Amino acid sequence: MRNLLVVTVILHLATLAVSQQPSVNLMPMPSSIQLGSGQLPIDQTFSFAITGFRDAALEAGVQRAVAALSRRTGMHFYDSSNHAANPTLLIHVEHGREKVQKVGEDESYELAVSEATAKLSAANPLGILRGLQTFLQLVETTGKGFAVPAVTIKDQPRFPWRGLLIDVSRHFIPLDVLKRNLDGMAAVKMNVLHWHLSDDQGFRVESKRFPKLHEMGSDGLYYTQSEIREFVEYAHDRGIRVLPEFDIPGHSRSWFVGYPELASSPGRYKIDPAGPDSVMDPTQESTYKFLDKFIGEMAKLFPDAYFHIGGDEVDGKFWDANPKIQSFIHAHGMKNNQDLQAYFNQRLQKILNKHHKVMVGWDEILHPELPKTIVVQSWRGQESLATAARQGYSGLLSFGYYLDLIWPAARHYAIDPMSDAAATLNAEEKGRILGGEACMWSELVGPETIDSRIWPRNAVIAERLWSPQEIKDVNSMYARLGKLSWRLELLGLTHKSAQTLLLHRMTGRDDIAAARTLADVVEPVKDYARMDSVKGPWDFRAPLDRLVDAASPESDVARQFRDLVQTYIQGGYKDHVAEAQIRTWLTIWRDNDAKLQPLLGPSFLLQEDAPLSEDLSALGATGLQALDYLDKSEPSPEAWKMQQAALLSRAQSPKADLLLMVVAPVQDLVEGSAAGSRGR
Amino acid sequence: MRNLLVVTVILHLATLAVSQQPSVNLMPMPSSIQLGSGQLPIDQTFSFAITGFRDAALEAGVQRAVAALSRRTGMHFYDSSNHAANPTLLIHVEHGREKVQKVGEDESYELAVSEATAKLSAANPLGILRGLQTFLQLVETTGKGFAVPAVTIKDQPRFPWRGLLIDVSRHFIPLDVLKRNLDGMAAVKMNVLHWHLSDDQGFRVESKRFPKLHEMGSDGLYYTQSEIREFVEYAHDRGIRVLPEFDIPGHSRSWFVGYPELASSPGRYKIDPAGPDSVMDPTQESTYKFLDKFIGEMAKLFPDAYFHIGGDEVDGKFWDANPKIQSFIHAHGMKNNQDLQAYFNQRLQKILNKHHKVMVGWDEILHPELPKTIVVQSWRGQESLATAARQGYSGLLSFGYYLDLIWPAARHYAIDPMSDAAATLNAEEKGRILGGEACMWSELVGPETIDSRIWPRNAVIAERLWSPQEIKDVNSMYARLGKLSWRLELLGLTHKSAQTLLLHRMTGRDDIAAARTLADVVEPVKDYARMDSVKGPWDFRAPLDRLVDAASPESDVARQFRDLVQTYIQGGYKDHVAEAQIRTWLTIWRDNDAKLQPLLGPSFLLQEDAPLSEDLSALGATGLQALDYLDKSEPSPEAWKMQQAALLSRAQSPKADLLLMVVAPVQDLVEGSAAGSRGR
Repeated sequence: MRNLLVVTVILHLATLAVSQQPSVNLMPMPSSIQLGSGQLPIDQTFSFAITGFRDAALEAGVQRAVAALSRRTGMHFYDSSNHAANPTLLIHVEHGREKVQKVGEDESYELAVSEATAKLSAANPLGILRGLQTFLQLVETTGKGFAVPAVTIKDQPRFPWRGLLIDVSRHFIPLDVLKRNLDGMAAVKMNVLHWHLSDDQGFRVESKRFPKLHEMGSDGLYYTQSEIREFVEYAHDRGIRVLPEFDIPGHSRSWFVGYPELASSPGRYKIDPAGPDSVMDPTQESTYKFLDKFIGEMAKLFPDAYFHIGGDEVDGKFWDANPKIQSFIHAHGMKNNQDLQAYFNQRLQKILNKHHKVMVGWDEILHPELPKTIVVQSWRGQESLATAARQGYSGLLSFGYYLDLIWPAARHYAIDPMSDAAATLNAEEKGRILGGEACMWSELVGPETIDSRIWPRNAVIAERLWSPQEIKDVNSMYARLGKLSWRLELLGLTHKSAQTLLLHRMTGRDDIAAARTLADVVEPVKDYARMDSVKGPWDFRAPLDRLVDAASPESDVARQFRDLVQTYIQGGYKDHVAEAQIRTWLTIWRDNDAKLQPLLGPSFLLQEDAPLSEDLSALGATGLQALDYLDKSEPSPEAWKMQQAALLSRAQSPKADLLLMVVAPVQDLVEGSAAGSRGR
Repeated sequence: MRNLLVVTVILHLATLAVSQQPSVNLMPMPSSIQLGSGQLPIDQTFSFAITGFRDAALEAGVQRAVAALSRRTGMHFYDSSNHAANPTLLIHVEHGREKVQKVGEDESYELAVSEATAKLSAANPLGILRGLQTFLQLVETTGKGFAVPAVTIKDQPRFPWRGLLIDVSRHFIPLDVLKRNLDGMAAVKMNVLHWHLSDDQGFRVESKRFPKLHEMGSDGLYYTQSEIREFVEYAHDRGIRVLPEFDIPGHSRSWFVGYPELASSPGRYKIDPAGPDSVMDPTQESTYKFLDKFIGEMAKLFPDAYFHIGGDEVDGKFWDANPKIQSFIHAHGMKNNQDLQAYFNQRLQKILNKHHKVMVGWDEILHPELPKTIVVQSWRGQESLATAARQGYSGLLSFGYYLDLIWPAARHYAIDPMSDAAATLNAEEKGRILGGEACMWSELVGPETIDSRIWPRNAVIAERLWSPQEIKDVNSMYARLGKLSWRLELLGLTHKSAQTLLLHRMTGRDDIAAARTLADVVEPVKDYARMDSVKGPWDFRAPLDRLVDAASPESDVARQFRDLVQTYIQGGYKDHVAEAQIRTWLTIWRDNDAKLQPLLGPSFLLQEDAPLSEDLSALGATGLQALDYLDKSEPSPEAWKMQQAALLSRAQSPKADLLLMVVAPVQDLVEGSAAGSRGR
């Protein structure tokens, strides 16, 4: 509690400092920043030194930052050393880190950059890791060389828990892909990887006590225990806790393939979604014996103090259908299935307690019979979070941070754990809101596409959870996100580059320019529309190799085009520079279908995109015609406008699970032309 | 000899089969190919089976091919198994491979694809590896799905030695970069990695007997022995021999940093090129004792039967300057330094013989006193190769295959080991020409750029060395190279994608479109012009982060534009489609400088490219004006033409170590317009 009060005070001070939002390329923005004058050159003489506390992990962390600096600048720092007399970067640390990273462990740092040197200081190496990322982001290409602007930064996180959930059950994600995502998380100062390790579609951890879990509960794709230990260490080195989740008693079909006796219904279970389904039977003592042994094994494998047991979306029909379970409910004076799940969670909580773990679960675990030590993760919203906080429970927000819903970054950015219902909490209750987690559910992503669904959008959630609440200017956010995005690719992330390979594969061709022109102005349908468009269960084995998979969740081209059209309209249709740029885009789109059509027929993967390509071409022509009317200062004819309305309406509707994102601005031009606005 | 005669006969038959050059996307082209009708679908039911001989390495090789197929198609082959009843791909092998891959070991295979199944058979797993690459290249994106065309292929290499030299001394190349290049080599059926491991600028192998070699003779960047063993195995798994080269007695300054007693001159040596230089002293017995121990150690580390001792460019001035060496020459009745090097090589040859290795060296080692068992690698040309062959020596051609000279693919493609002087050899002498090696000298490449200098151009040298001599149609080559190039990136190579990161770094911006437009029409200066432009020794520590590093060795855009202009001119200036495409390009270039100029000032890395950008813009304008004259069917005025001549002349000259590659076609348009050709 004491820590949280300190944070609140600091946040208040910080607010004053950051309200100007100086134009530095940082994401997340620090809590306090003062720009100086001049800059520190970064050239091949770059060196560093460490004073105060040091250990091998700290040195390795600094060496990784030097390697990242090398990658950023293309320079090999031959003379970089640990004991330079006049170091470019002086690092001072007070004391060491916790062996197992704690929630709320000090992550603050101070960074002072002058024209001569940079000084980074922190209480512990965790703060240094955060500060090094700030230093790296500050490196700019300038007219005279690479340089860091003179600046004084005092920084600490707003929330102690800033996570990313990655679901590796629906689609297995190999460790190299996860590791580059850890590197990305570290770059934006996130500190929890929530590893969703089991679900209906796959059990992804080797269990030595119950080997049929991973052997029969997966398609052969799982992590061995030695891989997990190495991975957890990799995360720890980057200041990231690994929170394991084993989702029970629902979402647990993969457990039943090898151990059907855990299920509430008899059956021969398969990971194939076409097979029978069930949830765990909480009335059998054998279930708890199993879970005690299993959790005991996992508790040793995952050092974090917290352990996520899922607990969401338990389908009560399997309990309803089992008379033995129903009589258990009556015999124990329970009212309903919710009470049975609460009983299950109480038993589970004791097992976790025995193995020295704190329980984390989704909204549904909230029940007055559970102790206040548990943490509730809310996919339902701030209302649910606030309710928990009022009752004395700690909470995390994930509502609004589901990356798989394919929302624009600005929509995630606008969601604050302390807003809406949470804003009405008192200080003590607010202190129970530990932070939040972005969620990457993997029904529709595989190793090739997951980066593009996480990045760069995840960075704005990271900023929401690290930076002061007042940092919320959307234009600044997009400007900084653009600068960050390509730097994230330097870490090995493929969120931008993977599209190229997907388009080559689709077209089977070397020249993918026309396919890219279309890909650049579409976005996948939002929310659950893609899965909802299929009858029956989603086939998790289906390849993810369509244009919808290659398209970015948020079209930069469309956003920039919308801004351009707004500028043009707000300028009374007189901004010739804007008009010329609009014409350039419209011409490219109008002419693209003629280039793309010959590629569509020969590719079974692109054929479905023919109507989209035609719509884009028609939109281009329409927009150009609207501009012609505007140029002539005469209102466009009513009949023409009616025709265009039909086209615009058609172009609005999703095709091949994709949305054309430039319909609205073209509509604005058509409407402007109808009013003959130029002449007014 | 018997093997070689068989090869010759087969080649003759093959010639008949391939003279039609059917349009399949294979590189290298097989020696015999017959297209059938229909195609074999590749879908998620893909499976394979192996009959006949099998071992773990073969199975691993097939699994790698399945993984590559998965990457190519985006499909995970859940049902792929080793014992399918009706496999998509049936693999039959007669017997196992040699434990250490031999020169001339059978690499032939037969591949028969029908609409129902594919059968791949070979005498040994080496042939299967080659055939699997053919199968993978045949996979197409079609209107109905992924498929392999029905085809019957009988294939074997023209030459038994098809290599790529990679110099890791001038710039250290990490193992992950080398491994992806091995994958690329395997994809184009190359079978030797010639690893240039030591040179003046760095000694890159851990020596346990002489640790000062790698410790003092490098900047800390070297391969450990366990890394090398793992790497050699990785290569062997892919059917690639690893030929180590330790270049002596010249090119050996890095040896002298730790062991100055080996040098012909006293001195305190550094790897820094500014320090003193020397060559080995061949007159001391201690030199041979050292080499005996060293080669003994390396002979165990590198299993290949061959061992490359360099032997090139020995600067005699260091021997001339040492009276002790001069008196040794006189005392032993030698005429000159060449005789002394021959003496050195004879001694070396005995040491290699003792350690069961065959000597390979550059042209300069050729001397009648050396036994005929040695192999001469010629950087001087077919004349040198033919001379060696006539004297009974085996030879390899590298002249014409130096990738660092930044030649267009067509120029490498035109060079044949059996042409010019070699064409006059008799059959027995021709049999001594074992093949050739592409050479990637690394003065101007680092880990980020080496892929783009090797690929895709290396593939045409691979084809020259594998395919029948008659396969030489340049248009077909470029068409197939384009298809291959992006597939090579699927293996992890970055020859196309690395440019993006370099342009981001240079501009410091998210939007690199204008920088890419310029990058796409320039090529680095050729031959040694870049190093020659610097006074004094080349600084190997200088970052490789300029536009010249980001530019491709061969501009696809410029080549396509040249072809387009030729089409237009040959059509009597009447081809409107070609003219429209030409105008599109010219307009983009004309307008690009206005977009790029604002980026140049803020970037110290781009400033030098301002004149290039201006030239490109001017060329665009000139080309458009020429087209306007042509459209009007009136000759362009003489004064205008004079002005353009000045521009064209200026644009021809290299700037920032780059050449604008679209000057000549614009010049053609200007000249056409002067003649008023349209009207004729």
